[in-house]
Amino acid sequence: MVTTRATLANTTVRLARRPNGVPEHGDWTIADEPAERPAPGEVLVETLYISVDPAMRAWVSGAQTYRDPVVPGDIMPASAAGRVVESRDKRYGVGDLVVGDLGVQRYAVRPARALERITAPVDDLALYLGVLGTAGITAYIGLHDIGRLETTDTVLVSGAAGAVGSAAGQVARAFGARVIGIAGGPDKCRYVVDALGFDACLDHRDPELVGRLSAAAPEGIDLYFDNVGGRVLEAALANLARGARIILCGAVSQYNSERMAGPSNYMELLIKRASMTGFVIFDHRTRFEQARAELSDLRARGELRADVHLREGLNQFPSALRDLFAGTNRGKVLLQTTTNDADRAEVGATQ
Amino acid sequence: MVTTRATLANTTVRLARRPNGVPEHGDWTIADEPAERPAPGEVLVETLYISVDPAMRAWVSGAQTYRDPVVPGDIMPASAAGRVVESRDKRYGVGDLVVGDLGVQRYAVRPARALERITAPVDDLALYLGVLGTAGITAYIGLHDIGRLETTDTVLVSGAAGAVGSAAGQVARAFGARVIGIAGGPDKCRYVVDALGFDACLDHRDPELVGRLSAAAPEGIDLYFDNVGGRVLEAALANLARGARIILCGAVSQYNSERMAGPSNYMELLIKRASMTGFVIFDHRTRFEQARAELSDLRARGELRADVHLREGLNQFPSALRDLFAGTNRGKVLLQTTTNDADRAEVGATQ
Repeated sequence: MVTTRATLANTTVRLARRPNGVPEHGDWTIADEPAERPAPGEVLVETLYISVDPAMRAWVSGAQTYRDPVVPGDIMPASAAGRVVESRDKRYGVGDLVVGDLGVQRYAVRPARALERITAPVDDLALYLGVLGTAGITAYIGLHDIGRLETTDTVLVSGAAGAVGSAAGQVARAFGARVIGIAGGPDKCRYVVDALGFDACLDHRDPELVGRLSAAAPEGIDLYFDNVGGRVLEAALANLARGARIILCGAVSQYNSERMAGPSNYMELLIKRASMTGFVIFDHRTRFEQARAELSDLRARGELRADVHLREGLNQFPSALRDLFAGTNRGKVLLQTTTNDADRAEVGATQ
Repeated sequence: MVTTRATLANTTVRLARRPNGVPEHGDWTIADEPAERPAPGEVLVETLYISVDPAMRAWVSGAQTYRDPVVPGDIMPASAAGRVVESRDKRYGVGDLVVGDLGVQRYAVRPARALERITAPVDDLALYLGVLGTAGITAYIGLHDIGRLETTDTVLVSGAAGAVGSAAGQVARAFGARVIGIAGGPDKCRYVVDALGFDACLDHRDPELVGRLSAAAPEGIDLYFDNVGGRVLEAALANLARGARIILCGAVSQYNSERMAGPSNYMELLIKRASMTGFVIFDHRTRFEQARAELSDLRARGELRADVHLREGLNQFPSALRDLFAGTNRGKVLLQTTTNDADRAEVGATQ
């Protein structure tokens, strides 16, 4: 049975202006507007969970990153998970669960080919934006494909309480490596060691960070999974083992700065015959299936905890993004849409 | 016939104090003193040519590099070429030509195993400190082993008029790559294009360097062989092709600074899925023979020019080192010892 619907009321979060420093509420426009209707080959999806990511700060900066800059007036792009409510493509039916770049909005129209079907129960859907989604897969591919993780490695992970960092540390430890985390403050460090099972965790605010890292890794760091940049990257460079690999995944400490700071001691790469390599996960789609299978196995064995920092309602998007930069989150920051986001005007067939 | 000798008068150049900025004459002590005598297994070598290298600035800074810091009072270490004048090891006889870390001095005693024999005519000896020595081999191994040079690459080389840079650009071009040099000033740039055969050369002092590099390499830089660091490294990062490789060989623009500047746009490595890798040539000794054979072939075919910036007399060492940082050299900076460096007290057998 195919039902047709009247136009739905969509809630959208658009970039109002380029942020200066940490994005503020006034940098966004939240409004209700009519939802688009799908054309042939397209699908209308109701978003249920929206991924809130540090990289969003770079996307709205106006700089060219690995994607085109978001322009003021645009709906904010975002990975999201949702449910198909109308399909004009034979690949999807109403009720199917999908993930894709749905944007920060209640209803998104997307080409069917741009979506990925999720066969898990809806209760597990949020995992596909976190530990079984981009965050977990980024950790897995960063460590294995880019970093060539060895069981004998001493691995350093910054942003260790965050979505990618918490997955990276747990994946490396399950593989057999020794894992040191870096996180903000003693509470988070306890969480990283006690809840996530890292071997150690250091506070990035510690003025003696370089020395503490040297004490924690007397043989040096073989692999550094960098999510933060800044002085933590410099501390890692100062403590590399010979032949070390630095995996550049993010630079969250720098995204709100007018001018990013480069690592002043980058020549440690020469002294230690080391490398620093950037990657963008979307180049590695052919590896997603295996990565997700192994991440699922780790979860099944209880070796991969995935906490979620949940905010409810699209109007909470600005706050959720600020949470990320304030570092109040443990694990993945998600926005859950609610039925209050827009009245869902559902009527019978009108044509 | 074995001759024994009286003690020779050695001229030594010792570090007097740690330099502040560009090393000054007063940072060195030049003195005559009795030469050491070789013990069993050792060889006494008279130095003929001494290699003057930018890395020397780092060695005297007190920082740990890939070698232990030079301490005030030490004879300045240096690669040098010379002639055996007394041998207490069966591998070497008087008159044999060798290269090794002989230091900035007229006579050096070294273990025989620490030396490398050169079978070329003495007139070619200086080449073994330059294009057929560390400089050329560094260029070759940096490009091929570390940088995985492809014939279709656009290659950028900084310090293009220097010993390593001039070799790197010529090796890459002979291999088939398109090569852009960066050098200091229009005269050097002309030399790099006209004499060395680079496809183009940009002046690192040009305030529009980033834009000019973009115009010279519209498809981006695939491989950057970095000898200088600083704003040239930033300009290269701003113009990388996807999947680019940066080879860290030196940072001559930074060695005299109190605090080195890191590349503020290092996250271009992520955006461009690129890598930055350091190496130390002495890890690659098993590849020296092949590298030198290919470099010799290039010279035989007239595709590898090797200019020398020669200073005469050990007392010219401080000036020769300053030449490097003033950038007045084209090609390899060498110090040639002269018979005035110390009176050569050669007598007959005394025991």
